[in-house]
Amino acid sequence: MESVTVDEEAANKAAERRITMATLCRPVVSVPEHVITMEDTLNLARTIHADHPRLDLALRLIENTGVAKRHIVQPIEETLRHPGFESRNALYEAEAKSRVPAVVREALDAAECDPGDIDLIIYVSCTGFMMPSLIAWLINTMGFPHDTRQIPIAQLGCAAGSAAVNRAHDFCVAYPESNVLIVACEFCSLCYQPVDLGVGNLLSNGLFGDGVAAAVVRGVGGTGISLERNSSYLVPDTEEWIAYDVRATGFHFQLDKRVPGTMEPLAPALRKLAADHGWDASDLDFYIIHAGGPRILDDLCKFLRVPADAFRFSRATLTEYGNIASAVVLDALRRLFEEGSAVSEHRGMLAGFGPGITAEMSLGRWTTSP
Amino acid sequence: MESVTVDEEAANKAAERRITMATLCRPVVSVPEHVITMEDTLNLARTIHADHPRLDLALRLIENTGVAKRHIVQPIEETLRHPGFESRNALYEAEAKSRVPAVVREALDAAECDPGDIDLIIYVSCTGFMMPSLIAWLINTMGFPHDTRQIPIAQLGCAAGSAAVNRAHDFCVAYPESNVLIVACEFCSLCYQPVDLGVGNLLSNGLFGDGVAAAVVRGVGGTGISLERNSSYLVPDTEEWIAYDVRATGFHFQLDKRVPGTMEPLAPALRKLAADHGWDASDLDFYIIHAGGPRILDDLCKFLRVPADAFRFSRATLTEYGNIASAVVLDALRRLFEEGSAVSEHRGMLAGFGPGITAEMSLGRWTTSP
Repeated sequence: MESVTVDEEAANKAAERRITMATLCRPVVSVPEHVITMEDTLNLARTIHADHPRLDLALRLIENTGVAKRHIVQPIEETLRHPGFESRNALYEAEAKSRVPAVVREALDAAECDPGDIDLIIYVSCTGFMMPSLIAWLINTMGFPHDTRQIPIAQLGCAAGSAAVNRAHDFCVAYPESNVLIVACEFCSLCYQPVDLGVGNLLSNGLFGDGVAAAVVRGVGGTGISLERNSSYLVPDTEEWIAYDVRATGFHFQLDKRVPGTMEPLAPALRKLAADHGWDASDLDFYIIHAGGPRILDDLCKFLRVPADAFRFSRATLTEYGNIASAVVLDALRRLFEEGSAVSEHRGMLAGFGPGITAEMSLGRWTTSP
Repeated sequence: MESVTVDEEAANKAAERRITMATLCRPVVSVPEHVITMEDTLNLARTIHADHPRLDLALRLIENTGVAKRHIVQPIEETLRHPGFESRNALYEAEAKSRVPAVVREALDAAECDPGDIDLIIYVSCTGFMMPSLIAWLINTMGFPHDTRQIPIAQLGCAAGSAAVNRAHDFCVAYPESNVLIVACEFCSLCYQPVDLGVGNLLSNGLFGDGVAAAVVRGVGGTGISLERNSSYLVPDTEEWIAYDVRATGFHFQLDKRVPGTMEPLAPALRKLAADHGWDASDLDFYIIHAGGPRILDDLCKFLRVPADAFRFSRATLTEYGNIASAVVLDALRRLFEEGSAVSEHRGMLAGFGPGITAEMSLGRWTTSP
């Protein structure tokens, strides 16, 4: 037996992981050019809902989101009009086709991949509906191989970004030489429903924003999070708490007031995932958490016993972009890359939450390309 | 080295495959109680579209489908009324909740699995839209573990049944001890659009039927098709040939008249998959093919150079149930099980076709549980 120093041993282990694990590379995120500030939102709520019996509560809830601004695909005057589901969905398709390719191209570059290197595209989006999904168009127009596998997901809402990471991870475990492209395209402003007047709706109107994100999961090589373990958890009997009501006017978002309290039943699932991996969920180096709203982040901080600062990437996404649904986790991760604080072997957690109520969670370690 | 006979060697190889491959177990299929015959369909077309300038062509196309009868969730009088997208989608949800659990229970039994054994549920359906998908409700009501992973797919249309098989296969390759439940729930009759008068629409009105199918893919054990290799292929620049137009009245099916001719560009993809595996696509023991329509089956027979009889399971599905979208391949496979002709080591192909135009294909070998 050769003798190796502890450092060599760690390096060998890391090298082995790089071969067998999937690496989630730097995400690229783009938000649209039309900006609506918190002040704009509050003024609009006061004007549009002047007679609403619970206006004060709604204003307070919106203020509490901490969303300083959001970016949306149309000017606010257009956004507030509802031209019908057909026009809305046609606009979704046009905006997706105009905004997704540049983000995808940059995400491929960030991962040092060409379209020809991609084996699977996972496209997640809950704010417009196309059949076939945008994947077919992306393959045809961006030069992806015609045998690229396709997983389009429209029904996991905000959890779909993390679900995409996890399914990409699984795919690379199955086929270790593979590369998977993840795209999250969310134009929440195209789901604005003027007739929905519940307090949850007024809050949502002040919370959600638009954004497109993409990232590559590389089976071999790459700098980013080397994915080691993932899991999913459905909070029992909550399937009606976050849901779409599907009507002639499109998707109507239903948000139960109990949703912000779901971190208490979800935190044990995150703890268990970490414990199963021999890690302590309270003691990781980075946290990439879905910024569903401020209470989600505050509660999870508390239940995981981590300092508020640990969720700084998610808080920044929420403040600057609002809740951009399935794209949040990729945007929060982008901010980790930009901060540049992560170093090899840093351990972290990624978690998205959405309808079900479903949590999609994963653990990984920072790795740098050799 | 021990000496082994050739038979022992084969048995050892088969045993090894059983350990490392995923087995697609016996599917269970249920069709609704309301029956509409070819004669009913032709009479309805003659009555409703008496003034249609291309009625004769439409009638001829419907007759050519060879669909003797179809099963639908409501009496035909109700089916022909359009009560609005909201009611239609609510009916989809109610019918799915009333019809899916029994099929799932029987599919679990057929695979000798309990709900607690399932690690992933793949639910495919393009004829209704729910967020969260039915998976959340299934987990909550049928006793699946709350950490069951979820892949809901709404955007792969008729190809989704085979896509589900392939993604289940991938998952078992990644996690060899896993079991995956596949559910295909299609109520095509709930997508009937009285205002759509193209010849393609009139044909579709005489072609599609309703059905629910489920099957388990077992990572270890099980009798059925041991899945060995899968692939996907998108026919270049055909993404508009099979598509939904999303409107206030729901999903409007668009069928280009060039679709029946797509087996010519698709056959080479099937040949390539087989060749990559060292098999000859023309010389397999069984074929489980999506019965999109009679021309699809006739052409593929011709291009793969197999006798018409090789597609007897698909033809029987088409004749007795019509095109039940993503559930077709599972129903055709059910018929292979029922025929009882497959024996250990029989080699076969499974292929579904749908929007994209996407083919999802796989190869496997008949295996029996030890």
